[in-house]
Amino acid sequence: MTKTAAIIGAGVIGAGWAARFLLNGWDVRVFDPAPEATRTLEATLARARRTLPMLYDVALPLEGRLTLHDSAGAAVAGADWIQESVGERLELKHAVLREIEEAAAPETPIGSSTSGFTPSQLQQDARHPGRLFVAHPFNPVYLLPLVELVGSAKTDPQTLDSASETLSGLGMHPLPLRGEIDAHVADRLLEAVWRECLWLVKDGIATTEEIDDAIRMGFGLRWAQMGIFETYRLAGGEQGMRHFLAQFGPALKWPWTKLMDVPDLDAALVETIAAQSDAQSGHLSIADLAHRRDDNLVALLRALKARDQAAGRVLAAHEERLRPAPVAATPMQTQRRTVPVDWTDYNGHMNEGRYGQVFSDAAETVLAEIGAMGDYVARGFSYFTVETDIRYLAETLAGEAIFVESRVTQGAGKKLRLFHEMKRARDGALLATCDQLLIHVSLSARRACEPEPEVAQALARLAAAHAEAIA
Amino acid sequence: MTKTAAIIGAGVIGAGWAARFLLNGWDVRVFDPAPEATRTLEATLARARRTLPMLYDVALPLEGRLTLHDSAGAAVAGADWIQESVGERLELKHAVLREIEEAAAPETPIGSSTSGFTPSQLQQDARHPGRLFVAHPFNPVYLLPLVELVGSAKTDPQTLDSASETLSGLGMHPLPLRGEIDAHVADRLLEAVWRECLWLVKDGIATTEEIDDAIRMGFGLRWAQMGIFETYRLAGGEQGMRHFLAQFGPALKWPWTKLMDVPDLDAALVETIAAQSDAQSGHLSIADLAHRRDDNLVALLRALKARDQAAGRVLAAHEERLRPAPVAATPMQTQRRTVPVDWTDYNGHMNEGRYGQVFSDAAETVLAEIGAMGDYVARGFSYFTVETDIRYLAETLAGEAIFVESRVTQGAGKKLRLFHEMKRARDGALLATCDQLLIHVSLSARRACEPEPEVAQALARLAAAHAEAIA
Repeated sequence: MTKTAAIIGAGVIGAGWAARFLLNGWDVRVFDPAPEATRTLEATLARARRTLPMLYDVALPLEGRLTLHDSAGAAVAGADWIQESVGERLELKHAVLREIEEAAAPETPIGSSTSGFTPSQLQQDARHPGRLFVAHPFNPVYLLPLVELVGSAKTDPQTLDSASETLSGLGMHPLPLRGEIDAHVADRLLEAVWRECLWLVKDGIATTEEIDDAIRMGFGLRWAQMGIFETYRLAGGEQGMRHFLAQFGPALKWPWTKLMDVPDLDAALVETIAAQSDAQSGHLSIADLAHRRDDNLVALLRALKARDQAAGRVLAAHEERLRPAPVAATPMQTQRRTVPVDWTDYNGHMNEGRYGQVFSDAAETVLAEIGAMGDYVARGFSYFTVETDIRYLAETLAGEAIFVESRVTQGAGKKLRLFHEMKRARDGALLATCDQLLIHVSLSARRACEPEPEVAQALARLAAAHAEAIA
Repeated sequence: MTKTAAIIGAGVIGAGWAARFLLNGWDVRVFDPAPEATRTLEATLARARRTLPMLYDVALPLEGRLTLHDSAGAAVAGADWIQESVGERLELKHAVLREIEEAAAPETPIGSSTSGFTPSQLQQDARHPGRLFVAHPFNPVYLLPLVELVGSAKTDPQTLDSASETLSGLGMHPLPLRGEIDAHVADRLLEAVWRECLWLVKDGIATTEEIDDAIRMGFGLRWAQMGIFETYRLAGGEQGMRHFLAQFGPALKWPWTKLMDVPDLDAALVETIAAQSDAQSGHLSIADLAHRRDDNLVALLRALKARDQAAGRVLAAHEERLRPAPVAATPMQTQRRTVPVDWTDYNGHMNEGRYGQVFSDAAETVLAEIGAMGDYVARGFSYFTVETDIRYLAETLAGEAIFVESRVTQGAGKKLRLFHEMKRARDGALLATCDQLLIHVSLSARRACEPEPEVAQALARLAAAHAEAIA
């Protein structure tokens, strides 16, 4: 059954939540009284629709239904999840939460996107504080998996467990914190860096662009996959974390940061930073920057997904949940996906190599259907492709949804031959065909051999069904 | 002429420098009296040899010659660059620099890898302070592009310019700082985060693993491509950086960090961190962790290179410098590269799609040779592949060096037909062949058309030469 999320406050963060829910098949009910809310929501949805489907090698569920409402009370009616993302003023949050509680069922979970307030602060006047917690996401909410999940002593632990499940179901990584603290975890780290950055600019050691380079050319790449502690464990070498701490502990007493003090963000410093930022990025509009950021994130997240590491693990797990069970129809639909930005070349269309990858993935679906993936591979057997003949019939662009239909044209002995047709989802246009010959192999001998009887029989059945349908 | 680098101190950082120079074709002379130095050097070189060549889609230069020496004086003889990476104790640095200056020519540049000391501190007793500067890299030095370049008032500006050129030639991103400051730029940011992290662990808000997740599931991904200022500019929206500063400036006065104070790294806190780190990563050896980190970095850096963004721009620029001019021999060598880790699939070998990519890249080399790339594409013409027939003859593994030999088998009118052979560099074994048909197109009409006369003539000449060589 389709679930419903109520989004109260649809600025950049609220709109990001709306997109995350909607594209994962939830109906979404939005309330935001601000005049620019509709524009933000539309722009964010457009960005999310372009990029979120590119993260996965399978299709997302059918998009839910989006409706706009005139009040928080109207928006939360019948909701299975309520997400509050209004401005960071405690009185405003309290007023909105009061309105939500008047209209919502008492058991409906309410997550707050607050970056600064603790759940205890939010719960001060709550009628049903047990279902109220902090669910703090990161911009862009539709692409970044992290969401900090914080309850107080009053929050019902079961509510947090079930919230965690819901967020995982959206492809996110819920991170339950062990205690309440101002600004939670990630924003504290960001605030520390931010303060140090302000000093570096103020003291003229580096410009905003140079500081950005100091981050993204070096430790930013480490942090995208390991974080700080695992990186330092590695720096400690075989002698481990205790050795590292003994070695670098003394630096805590050295003047390596100015953070005993906070710079005054006066007009002069604001002007310096703003002017440097203009020099660095002023030639790009905010839409350009967001486009660039999103495309970079798609490429980085896909790189990590292929390695099943860090944020890529979250994606890989979500993809497995999204993967449809293969249906033994003729032809079989063996792929349904969106072409990601990292698949195009200088001609502006999908590179020929990526067609090969799509047909390779299509073959894997057939192999899964005949029981020749997973355990079978672990037991030392597989199919290797020995020849492909691909015809490229029409251009395929980044962002286009495609599907592949596959037929077994030969399936006896060591041989498996497939004929794939790749089509554009929008209009069914034929984009490419592939005649693909695979040979059954022993992975220990790395040589051709006969498949095991179950696989041989399943393959024979599939080949017969496909031959019959054609005849 | 082959250049020579002297590496004084070959711990993890010095060994990383040795690898970076060596794999970019420099001869390297190493001195380190520590008993484990040879082992560190060998392990680091093995890691670098496995991964650095994977970053580029062309081959690195022939590796230089590595020699070990008994003293700093012996190591620096005849060096074009001296890199000091001994322990972080000022007296030790001074003693080593004195020994270096006694043996080295007075104009040879000396870079120090120090993370804590300023160039002025290093120069205190220097005979020729003008050629002394800080060149502070980041671990792993052979993969991460960032190197902070810091001079003092005494450092010769020309020395810094020429150092910058040398470092760019190694595929690095030299970041000249505008002033001297303890710990330079990046380590100050790291120190700020580190101190905040220590508080979070001490106060039991999150474990080391949870903090790492808070980084790598969220802002670590933003920082791998944009850094902090550009990210915040985007957060400020159309109203720009001034708006962002006005909105978030007040947070500077809020208790969002404990950094007015420094936690005491006592035995209890050391034990807590070490135990949490063991729970997080104790099942992985340091070699496992380094392997994982390097593979992740290869995948992330390659993702950014394909988009020509952030650190990927540095790689792309280095790759262009490394790209050999095509030689119109028969057959033409159109590819020479190392198979990266992100190209393999569940069978443990290169996925069939990546063969398609290699042959696509091989075709680009032929197109460059006949003048049908770059400007020609910008003018609105290109060749699109319409059919490929690939035979996969032997398995190809990650880390293997391969090359492709290509022949024009048809080159008249709109048609260009190529026959490629992909071979293993080690033994010349034939791995795959590809019969590839391309059609000349107008990029505005997205339809086939005749090539321009210069391209048609160049293609006809190449086709004739290849036909003759076969006959």
